[in-house]
Amino acid sequence: MGKDLVYAVVGCGAIGGFYGAKLANSGKAVNFLLHSDYDYVKLHGLTVESVDGDIILEHPAVYNDATTMPSADVVLVCLKTTANHQLPELLRPILKPDSTVIMIQNGLGMERDLQPIFPGVGIIGAMAFICSNKVGKGHIRHLDYGALTMGIHCNVDAARMDAITHDFRASSVAITIAPDLNTARWRKLVWNIPYNGLSVVLNSETDRLMAVEETRSLIRSLMIEVIEAAKACGAEISTSFADEMMEATQKMKPYRPSMMLDFLNHRKMEISRMYLSPVAEAKKHGFEMKRTMTVAQMLAFIEANY
Amino acid sequence: MGKDLVYAVVGCGAIGGFYGAKLANSGKAVNFLLHSDYDYVKLHGLTVESVDGDIILEHPAVYNDATTMPSADVVLVCLKTTANHQLPELLRPILKPDSTVIMIQNGLGMERDLQPIFPGVGIIGAMAFICSNKVGKGHIRHLDYGALTMGIHCNVDAARMDAITHDFRASSVAITIAPDLNTARWRKLVWNIPYNGLSVVLNSETDRLMAVEETRSLIRSLMIEVIEAAKACGAEISTSFADEMMEATQKMKPYRPSMMLDFLNHRKMEISRMYLSPVAEAKKHGFEMKRTMTVAQMLAFIEANY
Repeated sequence: MGKDLVYAVVGCGAIGGFYGAKLANSGKAVNFLLHSDYDYVKLHGLTVESVDGDIILEHPAVYNDATTMPSADVVLVCLKTTANHQLPELLRPILKPDSTVIMIQNGLGMERDLQPIFPGVGIIGAMAFICSNKVGKGHIRHLDYGALTMGIHCNVDAARMDAITHDFRASSVAITIAPDLNTARWRKLVWNIPYNGLSVVLNSETDRLMAVEETRSLIRSLMIEVIEAAKACGAEISTSFADEMMEATQKMKPYRPSMMLDFLNHRKMEISRMYLSPVAEAKKHGFEMKRTMTVAQMLAFIEANY
Repeated sequence: MGKDLVYAVVGCGAIGGFYGAKLANSGKAVNFLLHSDYDYVKLHGLTVESVDGDIILEHPAVYNDATTMPSADVVLVCLKTTANHQLPELLRPILKPDSTVIMIQNGLGMERDLQPIFPGVGIIGAMAFICSNKVGKGHIRHLDYGALTMGIHCNVDAARMDAITHDFRASSVAITIAPDLNTARWRKLVWNIPYNGLSVVLNSETDRLMAVEETRSLIRSLMIEVIEAAKACGAEISTSFADEMMEATQKMKPYRPSMMLDFLNHRKMEISRMYLSPVAEAKKHGFEMKRTMTVAQMLAFIEANY
């Protein structure tokens, strides 16, 4: 075993707060970059109220300026993709030539956009399967699940991947390694595209969307459209995956997808990465995501009228 | 010239009240079949407050039971299509073998459904290009336009068509005769499908829908989809018609399409005839109206949650 990895967490919301606290709680060195919650967390610490047992970090290593942070071996990017334009500025001070960036985000194409900005740096895409909300300053509530699926985008060798996987598992975070990041990102979109968008357009949690035959049918059509688009983009997903996702959602407690929370709080929604990027990628491969684009255009209207 | 035609108006709302009053005001025999407003109109008459000059019928010939009505040469069906299941019962008592039914409705396929129920009877489909609202019992407010486009579905000879056209024109209602009803109905859908559905799903009048680039783009995509579906169904409409419709709407005062009024009043919406019938007809001809169906499924969800 080599030297212990040093972690940095950029964005300390429902995702970054959770995974960062898990790693720190298991004894890893974790530096948090915060923005609005910096003063509060510096004084009062970080609380993760969790179904798996609460975690309280009384004195986490917090920073409000990336240029003052120690460099990191592994950076967890846990911002919403709507803030990704800030990444060059936020990451530059904390990256070393052999650092690894893990982008725990929803959508498509974020890794490809980051790569030319930091050539040589390792990039991993990760998808969080978790029900977790930020309920107050420095206060995360973890309701269910928590697994991460990771796939390598570029420049990550097996030793580094093993070390990262080891650290997460030692923090009791389940890790799945996806053999193909593109497929893994499209698989996540199979759920994200119907439920995020419809929860906003129809202002309804998952259970209500699943309670009406026509929206169930629309959800399935959107899922099939995502699967067809994925196929056009070289990612094979079985159509039975749509049925699995619907059955799993049917069994879930009423849930507000992240975009619904953004909408209810009048925050910018992840329309670009979650909708427009897949639509553009599919179009480049000759497939038109008509249903998905219809939802995206409605979302844009809703955001324009905040 | 033959004997004067006797008219019956079934459904005395924004459409039936307006055209019935116009005909009656020009001296035609018009019998009105009313439901909820019967008592009020019997006592207080029918008022059409109109940009073209108000019309007050103090003692219109009103009925609340079709079986007590005189038979009619021409029946104007001015119900919402959501009430079309009542037509056999409502029309049977007032039809003669040579009567003509004019269906002033939105949607597709209403004439084809009526024909086998009253074989031999003449059927005309009509589209009203009018801004008119029912603002109270026996009180119609006519804001703009008022022209009717009519197309023969079956069993209407030239003499009857001439007589009807003459009567309407004598009542100062502009009449256009469409050479092909199918094309005329699809042309009306080019406007109806985007604006009715989106005004409900996004709870916005036409001006706000036109104020955002993404909804303008969605409206145009929906229009093009309707034009492509029409083509599959044998109705040729130029794509420039979409641009004409958008420009005309851009110039209109803020307008609430009829479906938005239904929605705001929690009345059943014309989803079936305005959305599902065109979608089914296009599918039968090998074309899938994916965008239109997406909107329709959202509308069904909204109606299910009234």
